[in-house]
Amino acid sequence: MTPDLTTPGAPVPAEQQEREAAITREVLESFDGCTDPRLREIMRSLVHHLHDFVREVRLTEQEWNAGIEFLTRTGHITDERRQEFILLSDVLGASMQTVAVNNAAHGDATEATVFGPFFVENSPEIDLGGDLAFGAPGQPCWVEGTVTDTTGKPVSGARIEVWEADEDGFYDTQYGDDRISARAHLFTDADGRYRFWGLTPTPYAIPHDGPVGGLLAATGRSPMRASHLHFMVSAPALRTLVTHIFVSGDELLGSDAVFGVKESLVKDFQVQPPGTPAPDGRDLSDRSWSKVRFDIVLAPEGS
Amino acid sequence: MTPDLTTPGAPVPAEQQEREAAITREVLESFDGCTDPRLREIMRSLVHHLHDFVREVRLTEQEWNAGIEFLTRTGHITDERRQEFILLSDVLGASMQTVAVNNAAHGDATEATVFGPFFVENSPEIDLGGDLAFGAPGQPCWVEGTVTDTTGKPVSGARIEVWEADEDGFYDTQYGDDRISARAHLFTDADGRYRFWGLTPTPYAIPHDGPVGGLLAATGRSPMRASHLHFMVSAPALRTLVTHIFVSGDELLGSDAVFGVKESLVKDFQVQPPGTPAPDGRDLSDRSWSKVRFDIVLAPEGS
Ligand SMILES: [Fe+2]
Ligand SMILES: [Fe+2]
Repeated sequence: MTPDLTTPGAPVPAEQQEREAAITREVLESFDGCTDPRLREIMRSLVHHLHDFVREVRLTEQEWNAGIEFLTRTGHITDERRQEFILLSDVLGASMQTVAVNNAAHGDATEATVFGPFFVENSPEIDLGGDLAFGAPGQPCWVEGTVTDTTGKPVSGARIEVWEADEDGFYDTQYGDDRISARAHLFTDADGRYRFWGLTPTPYAIPHDGPVGGLLAATGRSPMRASHLHFMVSAPALRTLVTHIFVSGDELLGSDAVFGVKESLVKDFQVQPPGTPAPDGRDLSDRSWSKVRFDIVLAPEGS
Repeated sequence: MTPDLTTPGAPVPAEQQEREAAITREVLESFDGCTDPRLREIMRSLVHHLHDFVREVRLTEQEWNAGIEFLTRTGHITDERRQEFILLSDVLGASMQTVAVNNAAHGDATEATVFGPFFVENSPEIDLGGDLAFGAPGQPCWVEGTVTDTTGKPVSGARIEVWEADEDGFYDTQYGDDRISARAHLFTDADGRYRFWGLTPTPYAIPHDGPVGGLLAATGRSPMRASHLHFMVSAPALRTLVTHIFVSGDELLGSDAVFGVKESLVKDFQVQPPGTPAPDGRDLSDRSWSKVRFDIVLAPEGS
């Protein structure tokens, strides 16, 4: 009896297995002439796992076609404002896996998390105690803390980039005009301290009107991200930290669409009733506001 | 001593391995709510192998970025005439692996090979003995054979799609105008026989002015394809065959850019000196021409 490969889970005959393995060998050998050893290593590993995937699921030609079409749509929706391939990497956890590989634990260095698709170069600079909102709606949030190295030494002049969604769940780049809001950079003082006004983070959906949103819907997954505020902190001779802080008590902490939550990054955002005096004397009249502390520890460069 | 992860090949500490494995587990579990079991199987396998790849090569954030940029450029160069994602799948051998998985050997059924990015729907129909060139330059080539099933029974009315590059190495779709040439479809006669005039296949480079071409150059690989003529043959109750025939003696048979060559598909194209009478009495005046025989055997549907 000839084994029927169309039966799900049917064993693959040895002769067929050998035919499939021979194709992988031939492709791997095609990189023998690659003079860049790192590129050769990456391509060989990629081919190895890509072929294993095709063989393991017995990918049909119709499914292969659906994959090509998915990638094509992902490419076509991507432009200067929207990066659907980063979203794809994020929802498949490939971004977090890359973060993990590149940010091994080092003493009590602050943990890293996903970069996401919403960072923009050349954010406005604000002074210590300045406000990053630039008109974005949301509850004011006083953020303060220190930047130190893993020996506890304060890092003065560390560059802190911060960016976040507004209370409607959108980053400035998603509005399709040229606004710059809810993002800024600042520098720590001589004692490694920083402070600024941001917005209390609120949950938002990653853009889900494209192919990645379709994938999430088809697989029964939510596009919601736990509330967070993005940080990127850099200083000479220290490992650049890309991370977020999350909001304690947020019910989305356990189901973040991009797997970015780490317990050490969940912070207590203390909401202050209207009329509570602000730390810097700012007049918030009848508005409530929140405050949070985030002390940042940077690992040595190359660790 | 803390192991240094930046040292190539340094062992990954157990604690770090566990952190990385935990991310993969979390992503796999995110598909638990997927109600389509086949989609769940595919996504879980994809995530598994994608994460293994990232971990195995210790992918740097710079390399991850280069990957995102590569995919973005691949998406942006893809349009209705150019399919760079199919090219990518082809040069990584993923297309041939998919072909292998879906076309298990069945008796003496003709072997399948890559579809490629140049097929076009609604090709012109030609009569038996007709010419698919429609003005495309090249040496005339008389192609004839039969279509049978694996019991040897002739298949009448089988639809044969044929398409090929011209002698300058280009498919009609690559000229950027609306020409339709060097492609056609025809049907076998009551005895399962077919015959047509094509062009003697010549080698060509796959489009290599885009990201895929850049990848081939960076890895020391050639973009050249062994000379070939594409076939797609379909008939009721039989497995549709997508294949090529290759030219015996072609020096590129051992280094085809998309790994499409199979020994059983290499055919003897016999070149005829000028003045040799054509099989159908066609007047070729002082031109040389070639002839080739290709007997096609179709496997049963679902085999
Ligand atoms: Fe975000
Ligand atoms: Fe071709």
